[in-house]
Amino acid sequence: MTDIDPDAYIQGILAGNRRMIAKTITMIESRLVSHQQAAFNIVEQLLPKTGNSIRLGITGIPGVGKSTFIENIGVFLANKGHNVAVLAVDPSSQRSGGSILGDKTRMEKLSVHKNAFIRPSPTGETLGGVAAKTREIMLVCEAAGFDVILVETVGVGQSETEVASMVDFFLVLMIAGAGDELQGIKKGVLELADGIAINKADANNVTAVEKAKKDLEYAMQLIRPESPNWSTPVMTCSSVTKGGTRGVWETVMAHRETSMQSGEFKQRRRQQSIKWMWALVDDGLKKFFRENEAIGNQIPLVSKQVADGKLSPSVAAKQLLSHL
Amino acid sequence: MTDIDPDAYIQGILAGNRRMIAKTITMIESRLVSHQQAAFNIVEQLLPKTGNSIRLGITGIPGVGKSTFIENIGVFLANKGHNVAVLAVDPSSQRSGGSILGDKTRMEKLSVHKNAFIRPSPTGETLGGVAAKTREIMLVCEAAGFDVILVETVGVGQSETEVASMVDFFLVLMIAGAGDELQGIKKGVLELADGIAINKADANNVTAVEKAKKDLEYAMQLIRPESPNWSTPVMTCSSVTKGGTRGVWETVMAHRETSMQSGEFKQRRRQQSIKWMWALVDDGLKKFFRENEAIGNQIPLVSKQVADGKLSPSVAAKQLLSHL
Repeated sequence: MTDIDPDAYIQGILAGNRRMIAKTITMIESRLVSHQQAAFNIVEQLLPKTGNSIRLGITGIPGVGKSTFIENIGVFLANKGHNVAVLAVDPSSQRSGGSILGDKTRMEKLSVHKNAFIRPSPTGETLGGVAAKTREIMLVCEAAGFDVILVETVGVGQSETEVASMVDFFLVLMIAGAGDELQGIKKGVLELADGIAINKADANNVTAVEKAKKDLEYAMQLIRPESPNWSTPVMTCSSVTKGGTRGVWETVMAHRETSMQSGEFKQRRRQQSIKWMWALVDDGLKKFFRENEAIGNQIPLVSKQVADGKLSPSVAAKQLLSHL
Repeated sequence: MTDIDPDAYIQGILAGNRRMIAKTITMIESRLVSHQQAAFNIVEQLLPKTGNSIRLGITGIPGVGKSTFIENIGVFLANKGHNVAVLAVDPSSQRSGGSILGDKTRMEKLSVHKNAFIRPSPTGETLGGVAAKTREIMLVCEAAGFDVILVETVGVGQSETEVASMVDFFLVLMIAGAGDELQGIKKGVLELADGIAINKADANNVTAVEKAKKDLEYAMQLIRPESPNWSTPVMTCSSVTKGGTRGVWETVMAHRETSMQSGEFKQRRRQQSIKWMWALVDDGLKKFFRENEAIGNQIPLVSKQVADGKLSPSVAAKQLLSHL
């Protein structure tokens, strides 16, 4: 791939060629500098063709029924004629090489639907990490004509902020507990939600779900809303009866309508782009810092001295920074 | 102050000399490099004498009765023989030059108590910001023999994380709303709480407070606790009847006991120190980055291009980082 012809890729992607999309994504995920360079060029040139999809982030801890929910809403949308791309950000895949979307069989119907494209979470670590790559992949999918992008992440508090920073609507899936308690989620995740859906609202579970809905509505009152024009609704849905899928989608569309009218939609996307730029700059800076040999050699000892209370954090920081 | 003799300061502070404490704090807050250098040296040498206080962070939005609460608990503790230092982190003071503790008359009794020391929030911007300075000041106070440090901050979501990162117990003060709603607080603040106290639990307000207490207890159930050994209690208190002050303090002590037994106390302090070191390193790195002339000149244009969707965040970041 030393002679990568960006134009061939760009034309292929714009024509919706799945093979070219997949090859570009592989380059985005590659550790080779030449691939990353080529991918950068391609994404950059695709930029004017991006931004036109509905970007929906979906989180929830394992066991909440995320993949079945995504399968249901994905098939619902694909049947309506939408082109649906499903992407994933899974921080655990950096270590294990596994992935929440690695097993396509989890989404049997969606994975074979002609209007759908499912891509597992990238593995490995580079500038900006897994989430940054997913964001680039999202742009490629948009340029290829996908008009709904679903970004899945595990609700364990490591990548939710990043996913919330790349979507128009961030949906938190929850379930009612065995008793009448709600299943605990990681600090902060609930506060990113534009909408909450309590899943598994099936026959035997309806009372617990209604109780959970009420509790969550109480809880969300305590959180000052991000926008004066939107308060996070608590919905219910079921993978068994497939009830609620349409309702969730209508909420996403209502949020889109409201935020477009108020100008917050455009503003949110602008702020997200700036935020991503600075996140990438910060990552690059940290890399630059740690790759400084003198600094890298000192970090373990200095960290230990600080933890042991033998060196103050400020003196330690000054000492490390002095090598720049 | 070119010939600052650190030993004189150190001896003065260790002897509890108020004038030497105040002078050292002034040096910590100074923008002059020579003062900061001297302050660093002093704090560094005081380090073995620090860490022995009970560090209590207190937040709450304006109107919640923070200063009266601090006055009450401060006097209660000072009367018990504790030496109480009250510090403040007020991010707004960076701009306005004002300060939440600037007006000592807000704490009439505490400010004249022989066992108390009140210091307003530092103003101005330097490495690590206002919060980092407050942390250094806390260390000076500890070395000077203050065994309870109260760190006040405004609950508007700018400095809570920093204050929570320097204390053993983070208390969020709230009030019940005019109706039966709770007064909204900034996203994330509630999740940092080791304890919540609903203030103004006075005669006419008791029903609303009880309702608010129940709602908050529901809400806190939804948040997975940081420690398996502690779940955030919701207390009530009143500045009028002074009820609850003792209860809040007993909760702080119970938390201390529990976390010391489990080893989490020591672990939390170690992690806090490391976290502060990296926060200061990150700040220093950002400063280093922005002070690079070529980069600084490019930032406005690049930011605009990114916001307008004409440049992708990753290419923009790469472009800026290329000047390092």
